[in-house]
Amino acid sequence: MRQIETHKCFGGSVSVWEHESDVLLCTMRFSIFLPPQTNQGAVPFITFLSGLTCTHDNFTTKAGAYSEAAKLGIAIIAPDTSPRGDHVPDDEDSYDFGKGAGFYLNASQELWARHYQMEDYIVKELNDIVCRNFSLLPDKQGLCGHSMGGHGALTLYFKYPNQYKSVSAFSPIVAPSQVPWGHKAFKGYLGDDETLWVNHDAAALVLKAKNAQNNNEILIDQGLADPFLQEQLKPEIFEQACQSANQKLRLRLHEGYDHSYYFIQSFINDHIAHHVMCLK
Amino acid sequence: MRQIETHKCFGGSVSVWEHESDVLLCTMRFSIFLPPQTNQGAVPFITFLSGLTCTHDNFTTKAGAYSEAAKLGIAIIAPDTSPRGDHVPDDEDSYDFGKGAGFYLNASQELWARHYQMEDYIVKELNDIVCRNFSLLPDKQGLCGHSMGGHGALTLYFKYPNQYKSVSAFSPIVAPSQVPWGHKAFKGYLGDDETLWVNHDAAALVLKAKNAQNNNEILIDQGLADPFLQEQLKPEIFEQACQSANQKLRLRLHEGYDHSYYFIQSFINDHIAHHVMCLK
Repeated sequence: MRQIETHKCFGGSVSVWEHESDVLLCTMRFSIFLPPQTNQGAVPFITFLSGLTCTHDNFTTKAGAYSEAAKLGIAIIAPDTSPRGDHVPDDEDSYDFGKGAGFYLNASQELWARHYQMEDYIVKELNDIVCRNFSLLPDKQGLCGHSMGGHGALTLYFKYPNQYKSVSAFSPIVAPSQVPWGHKAFKGYLGDDETLWVNHDAAALVLKAKNAQNNNEILIDQGLADPFLQEQLKPEIFEQACQSANQKLRLRLHEGYDHSYYFIQSFINDHIAHHVMCLK
Repeated sequence: MRQIETHKCFGGSVSVWEHESDVLLCTMRFSIFLPPQTNQGAVPFITFLSGLTCTHDNFTTKAGAYSEAAKLGIAIIAPDTSPRGDHVPDDEDSYDFGKGAGFYLNASQELWARHYQMEDYIVKELNDIVCRNFSLLPDKQGLCGHSMGGHGALTLYFKYPNQYKSVSAFSPIVAPSQVPWGHKAFKGYLGDDETLWVNHDAAALVLKAKNAQNNNEILIDQGLADPFLQEQLKPEIFEQACQSANQKLRLRLHEGYDHSYYFIQSFINDHIAHHVMCLK
């Protein structure tokens, strides 16, 4: 693992690391913010999963999260959104498939299965790396994400309840089986058998997961001026599913806010406080 | 003037605008954050001048300033750092001269004088545009800047005391006549006559300006792990000059912090509070 850059920030540090991934068979980068409290011992942490077209860099430079994380003593990991490198297959005409669009699942289809194993990368390999190398509490970790990364955060939270104790999302894709972004990704990575798709669909998973959960509330923020709201995001589907599953959900709809990092920075402090409270 | 983008942010809005500059003879962009208080009337404002290689975008996306600006009810303008466009001359081998390096002065030397008039652009043209188009209080404005932009903020503050009532800076070039970045810029834009350089040197200007000032304290933050500290920044020269001039200065030196926007975001709230207090 090689340190690409490091900066003191709010009394803690933000650094970018590069490593060879055995799961994705390529070189990957992630950032980590360590709050000043790591000087006194291990701290809880959040992994923030970014959206389509993003790398680790978008959250790291634009989310404005580190002030509150430093105050509350929580670390934040920001991984990349797909495998990378010239040898990794891509759909160059698509911003929503291939590189920058790994969808946080393990692909099974030829061409994609060799490298696109983002679920195993996030849940296993990267988790092992950060817990081994930094002063983190593996039993006190949560997931947060934006858009495609909100899909990742919610689905991995439901699938790995022993690993993730808290979850929140901004503008998440909550029902990918029912929207164009999800159709395209699932068809490409998982194939035509739609019965397999529900294993990667938050609105389907919450119904199965109801007994496995730790009873923490889920926090979701959604902007009402988000151009993807009607066609791709459809938070009402997830709200309905949570009601059926008795999953506590705090869905906040915000007049005038869009899909950008300006929306994220406006409410990120509430998400950090939410995770700190759940992970106590 | 054309709006390039706009986003709701912390209850206010951040937007990017493009306009034809009569002073620079090219198309320019700037961003403006308007806090929610503009709904109740005009607000004070800060112009943030960025450093070498930057555009309006660096501060806008990376500084994390808008939370505090929304809370305290102050607008922030972020201009570009030089004229732009294929027809504008550049020194393509230099990151510290030509495009991205306008040094907030009016060039007098052939080749550069036609377009590089950043002092008049910031103080006159852009100021007129923003005051005419947005709900701002022209009598309650301050300057903040980073590195080359810290130089711009301090020098324009001293030269236009009736326009700017508050000033602060991160890692400013305080004595450009005495450091390599300044030598190169002043020689190129102003020529070999060094007696003209002091008109654009904060450490020289503070000595002349002592009777003209409004007695507000100047706030400067400087990281001690800044790689440019010893050779280019030299805050001790300005500290000494302020003492001679009876100019109140709060110079804060921060262990471990570098020259990046992670340093700026760590202390930007103090700068915003400083301006709000001075502009009251």
